[in-house]
Amino acid sequence: MKLATIRLDGRTAAVRLEGDALVDLGFPDVGAVLASPGGLAAAKTADGPSHSAADAEFAPLVPRPGKVVCVGLNYVQHIKEMGRDLPEHPTLFSKFADTLIGAHDPIRRPAETGQFDWEAELAVVIGRQVRRAGDAEAAAAIAGFTVLNDITCRDWQFRTREWLQGKNWDSTTPVGPYLVTSDETGPRPALGIRCEVNGQVMQQDNTGDLLFDPVDLVRYVSTMIRLNPGDIIATGTPGGVGHARKPQVFLQEGDTVVTEIEGLGRLENRVVAEGER
Amino acid sequence: MKLATIRLDGRTAAVRLEGDALVDLGFPDVGAVLASPGGLAAAKTADGPSHSAADAEFAPLVPRPGKVVCVGLNYVQHIKEMGRDLPEHPTLFSKFADTLIGAHDPIRRPAETGQFDWEAELAVVIGRQVRRAGDAEAAAAIAGFTVLNDITCRDWQFRTREWLQGKNWDSTTPVGPYLVTSDETGPRPALGIRCEVNGQVMQQDNTGDLLFDPVDLVRYVSTMIRLNPGDIIATGTPGGVGHARKPQVFLQEGDTVVTEIEGLGRLENRVVAEGER
Repeated sequence: MKLATIRLDGRTAAVRLEGDALVDLGFPDVGAVLASPGGLAAAKTADGPSHSAADAEFAPLVPRPGKVVCVGLNYVQHIKEMGRDLPEHPTLFSKFADTLIGAHDPIRRPAETGQFDWEAELAVVIGRQVRRAGDAEAAAAIAGFTVLNDITCRDWQFRTREWLQGKNWDSTTPVGPYLVTSDETGPRPALGIRCEVNGQVMQQDNTGDLLFDPVDLVRYVSTMIRLNPGDIIATGTPGGVGHARKPQVFLQEGDTVVTEIEGLGRLENRVVAEGER
Repeated sequence: MKLATIRLDGRTAAVRLEGDALVDLGFPDVGAVLASPGGLAAAKTADGPSHSAADAEFAPLVPRPGKVVCVGLNYVQHIKEMGRDLPEHPTLFSKFADTLIGAHDPIRRPAETGQFDWEAELAVVIGRQVRRAGDAEAAAAIAGFTVLNDITCRDWQFRTREWLQGKNWDSTTPVGPYLVTSDETGPRPALGIRCEVNGQVMQQDNTGDLLFDPVDLVRYVSTMIRLNPGDIIATGTPGGVGHARKPQVFLQEGDTVVTEIEGLGRLENRVVAEGER
């Protein structure tokens, strides 16, 4: 099953993809579907007005997640090519909900950065509350997966020892278009992941190469804090970011960033100056 | 004006302190008051049922802030005594709302940490939305101040290079009891701040010694992301944390932590084992 949150005349609506149509589920967004008593099971059979998928304008998949937990270096091949040892624990930081934008929204490049970079990521969407989950409970807590690009201001990321301020610029993180439920993917999907800038492939890997896989991450994060329906875990990015290239490459106004995970979906976002529409 | 969020028979209520009484403002919590059209001005004159302040059970002052932005080392005297240079930029990390507890709630010490530590902090509460605020706009965006203790699992904080996982254990961060509005304190309050463990003074400083003061911090954070009513900025902690003592001291079950800022209020929290009431 594929669910999305779309914009409709000044409101948003949670929808289910059925062929070329989007069926309105009667909830304002996918986060509300996941938090509802019926949850995904009810979404499977719910019926409502139908919208054209081709014309859809996607909002952030979950507009107000309580948590967006992000993971640092997590692709094994990339860690090894950087000459580092495999870490014992995942490195975690976070994003505020106000960073999130829809799958085709413009990415607003702030005037304050000279190093605006991409990070294609597999994102886990939580479907039920868990704390100190074991493997089976962690797998069952995963509603499904989506695509996210952790757009980063590198100069701000490295201003201080904590990364938060490079990762939390308003309306810069596309997420969506669809939640693909884990009954279709399994809890540890091995899918091609790719980021292209202006048609040039910049990152290419497979989500099966994650050192800490989605189940590991749900287990680890839930050790410290409850995870709730709609919470998001961004699982880290493979090699090929602009900052690590020689010479370095950064995003400029007019660039197009495509972020795609095989079978999950595709983000396509144009980089614009802040203030531009 | 002093506002609080109290627990009443399975719900919470925003209240205004009037002498020994708490006047019910008709909102579920202080976050809802700040987000309402009338905001603080309406709260000043609102009337409703009255509750006894002496019997009040305090909920987290803002139970679901969209952001809890935290600042690293920020007290000048403490930075100098550690032999460090004054940083050019504030170091930022964040907490999830699920970390927050009320002013007198027990702090649940997780079994997974052996280094459970205190960090008394002045917390800024945002009253209106701002982005890229200048000094005057930043000052005007501050609804007021409260007291917070950024209880930290040091062993988890230093597992990786990002601090998040030491700072985000479920239900460990007391915040409150009152929002004291900035018309009483000014936007850059210089107030005694203190943390006591079992009656012994562990931290003692003055919030006027902050390198990046509340107005600086609102300006800096709002450069990157909008700040919304109810958002919290925890401004950093002075010297005297358990981790930096020789020998080190950490919190144990049965300890009592008192966190107090002159004129703002006092948190008093007992450390209990998780699962204990």
